[in-house]
Amino acid sequence: MRTESICIARIYLTEANHQLEKIIQYLHNNEKIAGATVFRGIESYGESGKMHQSTLLDLSFDLPITIEFFDQPGHVLEAIEHLKNNFNVEHIISWSAEQHH
Amino acid sequence: MRTESICIARIYLTEANHQLEKIIQYLHNNEKIAGATVFRGIESYGESGKMHQSTLLDLSFDLPITIEFFDQPGHVLEAIEHLKNNFNVEHIISWSAEQHH
Amino acid sequence: MRTESICIARIYLTEANHQLEKIIQYLHNNEKIAGATVFRGIESYGESGKMHQSTLLDLSFDLPITIEFFDQPGHVLEAIEHLKNNFNVEHIISWSAEQHH
Repeated sequence: MRTESICIARIYLTEANHQLEKIIQYLHNNEKIAGATVFRGIESYGESGKMHQSTLLDLSFDLPITIEFFDQPGHVLEAIEHLKNNFNVEHIISWSAEQHH
Repeated sequence: MRTESICIARIYLTEANHQLEKIIQYLHNNEKIAGATVFRGIESYGESGKMHQSTLLDLSFDLPITIEFFDQPGHVLEAIEHLKNNFNVEHIISWSAEQHH
Repeated sequence: MRTESICIARIYLTEANHQLEKIIQYLHNNEKIAGATVFRGIESYGESGKMHQSTLLDLSFDLPITIEFFDQPGHVLEAIEHLKNNFNVEHIISWSAEQHH
């Protein structure tokens, strides 16, 4: 088993942000990031202090969304810098990990 | 682009635990954590070995829940210690990351 | 509060892969991993470049799935090696973290 040092990036949005598809297309077409996964949370609060919540009875359309992708660290840090310059995203964080081939 | 060292915390609950809203309020009001995101898993097993599962036909009300938040490391570690003292949570883990401003 | 160094592993699948239950059983029964959590994403793309997407109108049955588990680093790395040998998984990554007891 061979392991490779990678960097994981996570972008925080909410559904009301409406940039999800553009960011996914951008990562795929412009940054040539090999894969990305999008998760929807069920509740969040952010700088506004406003709660974004989903229940069975009260379906919200402003739920938290995270886009995650990983690749070689240099490639990921470059993509993050371009994302910051081209999109209005709430937060971007990253951390180091290993991929197991 | 400026980067800042942060710490990410993740709390593991199940829906049957019924402390989600109290913990979210506590992080927001008492610990002054700037943001938190809640995810619901579709299946898990824990120390009991009992499976918590969701299917279209058999909707479970004891699905796994994670609460994640990040901030400056000292602030996060303090919040974790207070959470351990005030709530009955299954697990709390944390790891180091960078925030990209 | 006592902290313990752990390793978090994340396995990437899609729903069409149909190995989720076998992998969960394997982690529980063979590798004696104490807990695991399964998340379903709402969209992804991978090496194929093919998009896997879920909308209210167009319910997909090939959504991204992640299986996460954590334990002592040696135990997790051994489990990852066995998983690579026994299952056809898209990607496995891992990173270091702390558990707060």
